[in-house]
Amino acid sequence: MTDVETTPAQTVDHGVAHMKWWGWGVEGVAFHHDDKPGFAPFVQEIVGVELTAGEHATDLDFADLDVPASRAPEAVLDALRGAVGDDSVDVTDHDRVVHTYGKSIRDLIRIRAGILRRVPDAVVYPADEAQVQAVVALAAEHDLVLIPFGGGSNIVGSLEPQPEEERTVLSLDMGKLRRVLDVDEDSGLARIEAGGQGPDLEEQLNARGWTLGHFPDSFTHSTLGGWVATRSSGMQSDKYGDIADITKGLRVVRPDGVLAIRGVPSASTGPSLREMVIGSEGRLGVITEVTVQVHRLPEERVILAYLFPSWHDGLAAMQAIAESDASPSVTRVSDPHETRFSFATSKASKGISKVVNDALPTLLKAKGWDVDAMCLSFIGYEGSPEHVAYTQKIVAKIVRANGGMGVGKGPGKLYDQKKFDTPYLRDFFMDHGGAADVSETAAPWSKLRLVSSRVYAAANQAFDAIGKQGWIMGHLSHSYHSGACLYFTFAFEHGDDAEGEYDVVKHAIQQAFIDSGATVSHHHGVGIEHTPWLEQDVSTSGVAVMQGLFDSADPERRFNPGKITGA
Amino acid sequence: MTDVETTPAQTVDHGVAHMKWWGWGVEGVAFHHDDKPGFAPFVQEIVGVELTAGEHATDLDFADLDVPASRAPEAVLDALRGAVGDDSVDVTDHDRVVHTYGKSIRDLIRIRAGILRRVPDAVVYPADEAQVQAVVALAAEHDLVLIPFGGGSNIVGSLEPQPEEERTVLSLDMGKLRRVLDVDEDSGLARIEAGGQGPDLEEQLNARGWTLGHFPDSFTHSTLGGWVATRSSGMQSDKYGDIADITKGLRVVRPDGVLAIRGVPSASTGPSLREMVIGSEGRLGVITEVTVQVHRLPEERVILAYLFPSWHDGLAAMQAIAESDASPSVTRVSDPHETRFSFATSKASKGISKVVNDALPTLLKAKGWDVDAMCLSFIGYEGSPEHVAYTQKIVAKIVRANGGMGVGKGPGKLYDQKKFDTPYLRDFFMDHGGAADVSETAAPWSKLRLVSSRVYAAANQAFDAIGKQGWIMGHLSHSYHSGACLYFTFAFEHGDDAEGEYDVVKHAIQQAFIDSGATVSHHHGVGIEHTPWLEQDVSTSGVAVMQGLFDSADPERRFNPGKITGA
Repeated sequence: MTDVETTPAQTVDHGVAHMKWWGWGVEGVAFHHDDKPGFAPFVQEIVGVELTAGEHATDLDFADLDVPASRAPEAVLDALRGAVGDDSVDVTDHDRVVHTYGKSIRDLIRIRAGILRRVPDAVVYPADEAQVQAVVALAAEHDLVLIPFGGGSNIVGSLEPQPEEERTVLSLDMGKLRRVLDVDEDSGLARIEAGGQGPDLEEQLNARGWTLGHFPDSFTHSTLGGWVATRSSGMQSDKYGDIADITKGLRVVRPDGVLAIRGVPSASTGPSLREMVIGSEGRLGVITEVTVQVHRLPEERVILAYLFPSWHDGLAAMQAIAESDASPSVTRVSDPHETRFSFATSKASKGISKVVNDALPTLLKAKGWDVDAMCLSFIGYEGSPEHVAYTQKIVAKIVRANGGMGVGKGPGKLYDQKKFDTPYLRDFFMDHGGAADVSETAAPWSKLRLVSSRVYAAANQAFDAIGKQGWIMGHLSHSYHSGACLYFTFAFEHGDDAEGEYDVVKHAIQQAFIDSGATVSHHHGVGIEHTPWLEQDVSTSGVAVMQGLFDSADPERRFNPGKITGA
Repeated sequence: MTDVETTPAQTVDHGVAHMKWWGWGVEGVAFHHDDKPGFAPFVQEIVGVELTAGEHATDLDFADLDVPASRAPEAVLDALRGAVGDDSVDVTDHDRVVHTYGKSIRDLIRIRAGILRRVPDAVVYPADEAQVQAVVALAAEHDLVLIPFGGGSNIVGSLEPQPEEERTVLSLDMGKLRRVLDVDEDSGLARIEAGGQGPDLEEQLNARGWTLGHFPDSFTHSTLGGWVATRSSGMQSDKYGDIADITKGLRVVRPDGVLAIRGVPSASTGPSLREMVIGSEGRLGVITEVTVQVHRLPEERVILAYLFPSWHDGLAAMQAIAESDASPSVTRVSDPHETRFSFATSKASKGISKVVNDALPTLLKAKGWDVDAMCLSFIGYEGSPEHVAYTQKIVAKIVRANGGMGVGKGPGKLYDQKKFDTPYLRDFFMDHGGAADVSETAAPWSKLRLVSSRVYAAANQAFDAIGKQGWIMGHLSHSYHSGACLYFTFAFEHGDDAEGEYDVVKHAIQQAFIDSGATVSHHHGVGIEHTPWLEQDVSTSGVAVMQGLFDSADPERRFNPGKITGA
């Protein structure tokens, strides 16, 4: 496995897992394409970037970074150490840098270029809710800024301090609060601490026979609290719901005490406080505990692959499934570009490539399909064997009615194994001078084709504007009764001003969402990245109401100021 | 059909349906028990009230009311007439009285006793959103208080002016805004004006092959805007969702413009403005339009009745259904008291009574059931014939496993026909000196038995405290993955201080909800009736955040002030 050469910095072990300071995931794991013969030619074709297998283009040394010194007064640090313990206040450069950014392409561009404008002055690791309360009390006493930090996977800028911030900024790493406190087996409700990362908490739940069923792309490096704070959604949300559906109760530490919402299935108690905290990105306080609905591990679980002759047919099938009595756990269909990408990143001897290489060309030719228009789809099934069979039967009928065909279990199994690996690819691509990121949205069924075509047109215009060969691809990532989420990935070979070029492309895509009636984000949140479109999305009056909520709840602007509304 | 003798008041026809000024529903319709031989003895037994068939105990004359004069200055009325038209500003006593209260037992006690402390100074009937905007602008200009009014069915005090209010108070009757503006047939999304009453908008949707699927008890006299403003839930919410799930987009007129949320299936755009407006009871502005998800009328629809040997078994069955792969449209089970009530209110020759009278006693005796512990359940099924059969099969297995038995389609059909008639019974009961009302809550599955037993204990203690023979009964009204709604009805023969006695009983039941981990309301809202328990339910810090939202969104307290938080 190839890897980037990096020089480790001096670090302190807090027993909390962090990602690489310069990229996604853990040290020593990286994407490689030695066994994927189609990959390098494909990348050459679509964005003109030449990949040479096994060669490292990057050499990053932490020592090269010019890290601004901590501005935290010693008295503040002493008080914090008194609250959480001496070892749980970290002012090392490495820890402060790890907590400066999330993992958006903009973040990676900046960290690789050594751009560090405002770095948290200290990282604080509370071990329980009482310690969070103590830190919040100190924030009021010493006028500190608090930025809650989960797994650090955010890609909309929610984690970075405001550049002009004069006050002491603390990154509040929630990683020690990761216990499943209680599982109410009668009700399918679990009380879980907010800092638990995906694999950690699924492991604790699985051991008792339960699952949360929340699997965002970031699953391996994101936390329950982070999912709640950004309104996350997962790959199996068709069955398990978005995090807003899953979250039943909450505890949020605020200056006036703990805002506590009891875990009940539904309530009519005025404007929903639960739904104010969900998506609040730290602005209303620090989420310490979440009561979530959990499900018994399904008896059976399978993901089947299908092919459709066109994007139109693939979307029509997903729409028909959403309207039917079927209840699959996953509904996903890639557009032709992303389908080609899937083939190119497959190993020659496995998965969808194997299917394509072996039997499909003959089959497809017989059907008269245009291989370049073909769309790959994955549908998941969970439950009792009878339920899985019942749902598969309904779906099979709909697939056939929309001209599609099943291609078996093999590709679905591989997709399921590899589904969290995509972010590593981006770092690899950056090593070779490329920039790639994602934009996602949701829209009614009636508008999905329009969204898709407008996004393609906007991205291609943007690539022209920056004078680059670019690539855009997308998929429908899951379905609702009234519409679906569309998830786009874009890439180009960047020049000297990678951030500026990215801005042009990102801006064009987000504006295309808004112009076609879609939302600015379906599950990544607002942060600072999506703020410019918020008024167009939820109206000027809506943003004013939201701002009023923030101003009244946090008049001194101590809780992650500047995020979401920009003020 | 018996009816109360009332003297009609002078009214103006605005083309908007209103309920009786003194009770539920339309003039000329009332409950009677001539054909229900078991009813009078049953009432005599449970609350000691003697009913004599065909006799009217009430004689209400509108002319007896001492209606406070309108305080609206002529200049304000002139400005309003300029905004909505001369005929759409009503200052008659009748219209103002109809808009003073909702239809809680407290409201009915007061109106029957002629207690009118603060009556709206005028009722305004805007015909479209532009006219609502004009009225909201005048409210700012003349410092007026606006109370949005839908169907007037509210039972938590959300509609009444604050007694001490010195400013001119307008009741903003939304009844003219009742059009289905658009149905997006691809997406299953409809844009509907907020003032549409249940039957009116279902009729418009049904004509196009669609249904909203929202059927609260108040359906015949409540509006879409009212459902949204109070977080309503309906009898088929198991399938169609609560109004919070159904509502995808919103338009709310505010002083700074229209707060507009686009109708998308899901969004990650910060704290949910949609979920702030839902449940806001008019405090954030005037809801003029709602984008709701709608469903195609099901191919098949059936409600089956079941009997369980005990409340414990009935709850266990509903819990198992919620955890299963089945997806029924209705899950309902009455406790033994309510089951007895159902038998007593059945006609001798029809429905459940017929089943019981004919065959059941023998059957039950053979099974060794205690008839007084028996619980009646209704389960609804909707969808394709295959789906209905599939779901019925899963449910049948669960019913058997929990000792229950199916009793066919007849009772379910009758329940379906009569399901909106219950409120008439309350007026009838009041005619005979009785007081009856409801309290409802939601709790996790693990706590439902505790909630139920605590509510019974609390109500019986309260009946003792007021020295009355009282009755309480309840049912599980629908299910979620993690719990269910419990709905209680209580009754007693009131003395001279009916309101005070009601307070004692109501207080005891609501406190029992809170003490057993349930919520203060599942679907009726907060109004002024549930305000005393709000802090215990959503925490002191939570209420402070909510108050901050109201204060920042409406600093002059012009939008239905005093509701929900009491401030």
